[in-house]
Amino acid sequence: MNEPPQGLRVALAQINPTVGDLEGNAELIAQFTDRARDAGADLVVFGELCLPGYPAEDLYLKPHFARANVIALAALARRTSGIAALVGFAEPAAAPAERRRDGPAPRPVHNSVALLADGEVASVYRKNRLPNYGVFDEVRYFEPGGEPLVREIAGVTVGLTICEDLWEEGPPAALEAGAGARLIVNSSGSPYLRGKGTDREQMFAERARAYGVPIAFCNLVGGQDELVFDGHSFVVDAAGEVVARTRQFEQDLLVWELGDRRARVEEPLADRDEVYAALTLGVRDYTRKNGFERVLVGLSGGIDSALVAMIAADAVGADRLTCVVMPSPHSSEATQSDARAIAENLGAELIELPIGPAMDAYGETLGNQWTGKGLALENVQARIRGNLLMALSNDRGGLVLTTGNKSEMSVGYATLYGDMAGGLAVLKDVPKQLVYELVGHKNARAGRELVPGSVIERPPSAELRADQLDEDSLPAYEVLDRVLEGYVERDLSREQLVDEGLPGEVVDYVIALVDRAEYKRRQAPPGIRITSKAFGRDRRLPITNRFQG
Amino acid sequence: MNEPPQGLRVALAQINPTVGDLEGNAELIAQFTDRARDAGADLVVFGELCLPGYPAEDLYLKPHFARANVIALAALARRTSGIAALVGFAEPAAAPAERRRDGPAPRPVHNSVALLADGEVASVYRKNRLPNYGVFDEVRYFEPGGEPLVREIAGVTVGLTICEDLWEEGPPAALEAGAGARLIVNSSGSPYLRGKGTDREQMFAERARAYGVPIAFCNLVGGQDELVFDGHSFVVDAAGEVVARTRQFEQDLLVWELGDRRARVEEPLADRDEVYAALTLGVRDYTRKNGFERVLVGLSGGIDSALVAMIAADAVGADRLTCVVMPSPHSSEATQSDARAIAENLGAELIELPIGPAMDAYGETLGNQWTGKGLALENVQARIRGNLLMALSNDRGGLVLTTGNKSEMSVGYATLYGDMAGGLAVLKDVPKQLVYELVGHKNARAGRELVPGSVIERPPSAELRADQLDEDSLPAYEVLDRVLEGYVERDLSREQLVDEGLPGEVVDYVIALVDRAEYKRRQAPPGIRITSKAFGRDRRLPITNRFQG
Repeated sequence: MNEPPQGLRVALAQINPTVGDLEGNAELIAQFTDRARDAGADLVVFGELCLPGYPAEDLYLKPHFARANVIALAALARRTSGIAALVGFAEPAAAPAERRRDGPAPRPVHNSVALLADGEVASVYRKNRLPNYGVFDEVRYFEPGGEPLVREIAGVTVGLTICEDLWEEGPPAALEAGAGARLIVNSSGSPYLRGKGTDREQMFAERARAYGVPIAFCNLVGGQDELVFDGHSFVVDAAGEVVARTRQFEQDLLVWELGDRRARVEEPLADRDEVYAALTLGVRDYTRKNGFERVLVGLSGGIDSALVAMIAADAVGADRLTCVVMPSPHSSEATQSDARAIAENLGAELIELPIGPAMDAYGETLGNQWTGKGLALENVQARIRGNLLMALSNDRGGLVLTTGNKSEMSVGYATLYGDMAGGLAVLKDVPKQLVYELVGHKNARAGRELVPGSVIERPPSAELRADQLDEDSLPAYEVLDRVLEGYVERDLSREQLVDEGLPGEVVDYVIALVDRAEYKRRQAPPGIRITSKAFGRDRRLPITNRFQG
Repeated sequence: MNEPPQGLRVALAQINPTVGDLEGNAELIAQFTDRARDAGADLVVFGELCLPGYPAEDLYLKPHFARANVIALAALARRTSGIAALVGFAEPAAAPAERRRDGPAPRPVHNSVALLADGEVASVYRKNRLPNYGVFDEVRYFEPGGEPLVREIAGVTVGLTICEDLWEEGPPAALEAGAGARLIVNSSGSPYLRGKGTDREQMFAERARAYGVPIAFCNLVGGQDELVFDGHSFVVDAAGEVVARTRQFEQDLLVWELGDRRARVEEPLADRDEVYAALTLGVRDYTRKNGFERVLVGLSGGIDSALVAMIAADAVGADRLTCVVMPSPHSSEATQSDARAIAENLGAELIELPIGPAMDAYGETLGNQWTGKGLALENVQARIRGNLLMALSNDRGGLVLTTGNKSEMSVGYATLYGDMAGGLAVLKDVPKQLVYELVGHKNARAGRELVPGSVIERPPSAELRADQLDEDSLPAYEVLDRVLEGYVERDLSREQLVDEGLPGEVVDYVIALVDRAEYKRRQAPPGIRITSKAFGRDRRLPITNRFQG
């Protein structure tokens, strides 16, 4: 089914825009358009809503935001000549009805892509299928389009689609193929989850074969709060073969000519490298796009904070990373020395702040108003550490990264305002087992123990009381992570989990812990999503909830 | 247009269910059904999704939750005889497709109401119009119904609708009226906002006149996380006159006979009483439904914490309220003595915990690692107070109520993990000006200064440094609250605010503060919604966002 090159040269412009930065995004689009023209492309394709940024959430509801993005689009069009450009923008919907008090808001905009050519907005295609599940709320914002759209570009009929339009069979792509499209272009904002790049390729290959046309998919790249867009744009030919592929997790520009059997095809990262790269980009972009110069990590000597420090050093540079070790009387010499070794191996600044004096002060102040033991006393320690990190952050302007993993966040094995204090929860969607895998993998890649072996070997402990071990309060992580994967990610019931061979009393215990911790997660910092169900907009459960199981 | 009584006797059963509590809710429904039968009703109407609870959010996505609610419904049906009951439930949708990885989830259930009669589920009506704006995400959960439904009850043709179905003209109600309905029944879960009860009556009166039939509206009552359902159920006759009205903010059962010109018609509360009652119910139900025995409030001597303590005492009883005064070297004698007076006037427990020793300990520990001044030092103080409250909470099991008002939450004039630490932010949606109004009003109602006049007169101050006043950092609250109402609640642009006569530099300053504080609000506890746009699921803005204005 491959044909010889036939003239239409398509550039996939995989850019990293910033939500709300109309000026910066327009400049980025203009630069990539120039580069695509220089590379001989007839058409340059950008990702979904690249001009206003995606997802811009309730910004789309502000009429003046939509107006500003239309003005920016017109200015971009004027800079486009000698090449056609497909640019995603929020298109104000016709005659929105008056908003009633607390009544249905009109959906103010379309999720659209403009075909800019010869200095003008030549055509506009409106997304037909609006995802409204998982992390997506598109029905809240967008009025769906109802029409397919094909356009002649450099003599070739091209069908336009946006992201979800191609995730199900049928219109608009089927109609566009029927109308003679020889290429379907898909402008996407498809967020990362583990292994999703390959899944997308397989699905688009099915569509290409079904419609008998090649598909060019251009994704966004970059971090936006809890989401990471992985890039990984590609072209599949009419036989479903991948004939072009961009890099993952970075900006890229790739030109492919219709009929070309093999343009540049980047090799996708292996699983653990991919997850690590997603986390690193998430941290880098949250830091950069929010204007932080430094990041701070509290190092306990445990494996979670070790991984976070490692990611932070890769994301922003070790010279902009401050590690803070905050020993208490319950901290062992071994963990403290491991913590120091990690900071040193990474080449990061190290600060030591013992929390004993503050613990004494709280004890003195609370006096006989409390029992001074148990959970309350443990939490005071975690909160002193949180306060110290925040004091450094407020004083120096750095972003505090929190270190709790998904297993802990699931069962509430974390102190609100304590170790949960910070701006970004790097491992919030990374189960404990995967934390071990990533550290082992990175050590192996580095060819040395960036994280000392003792950190990996030592049984996990919060070190908030003498001889404390995680496994005193929680099931072994191998079991815990299986229960959590079923309960949280797959929404299985207690009975289904038991049917999968998990012990009933462990299941009951874990489910109760997960449900009870909802109030903590509601106040947790955003985390980077890498699974099919992260804690965040992916999973919206009430705090007040008496359903069990 | 009024007709004489014609036999059909309808009971509005305004109940307060708990999300997820299938057993408890079924019992409540059965009790009210019995009471309605005893009162001679032919039909008893309950609020929307009263059996599973509303909004149960992603619980609706769990198939085993929907199954359990169907089993509970069948059991309820068997207990229904001698009366028909309209009971809201989550009805599993037919043959849900397999869920694809990160693909469109099938909408698993209908938002339905079952007509239970003679021991069976006689009919089911499915909500046609699904709100998906503001606080509502119903397109995420529910497959819409497409049909109107009329049923003969006690010889009278009755049309069934659910909440939003009647908020716009047209089907299903227009079709039901056309099919001969002599009464339209509306089962609702319509959350409170200031003045909404009256708005609803006016809108339903319009519909009643348009369709020429009376409308019986039965709402839920009670608090569910950030929402309060106000009850305020009613019947409007075909002329649009209110001929029956239940109480607000409490459970109620009211029987009205078709054609009756005036059953019991409760007088609605005056504006400030209504807002106060909403806040009180919100606190009471969050506390009760989440199993807290006590509440804790940090009293600063300022007006915000005074109002919160007052509400808390009314919500749970002064004997279950602990007030905590936490003076620093910057606290004035006057504010501390006012704080003590408030606790005493309310009859609440009072604990004093000076924070000086802990401040010293932090200073000593941080040593030359920080400057020890400015915002960092101020925040340390607020965070020590947060930690002390949380230590008491962890030790005694009480719920900490936070005291920041909407004006402060808007501009970020609050310390994350400090005065923002707690389980429920009582005044999160109450602008500062309204805080004053409510306190003045409650003092007047009490006929004495429950809150000392000096608290009302004193210029607001966070007292985190010597001689600090809110107005050093913020515009006067009269101006600030006007900017915030326009920017936050009405989504106005900078230009529109200036056109409304607000000073440009104040507008710019406030907008920048509001945008910059998004990360703090993301980690704030839930608050009780009383306006048309609260911080919570009502307003979803990205943290990473470079759009200004």
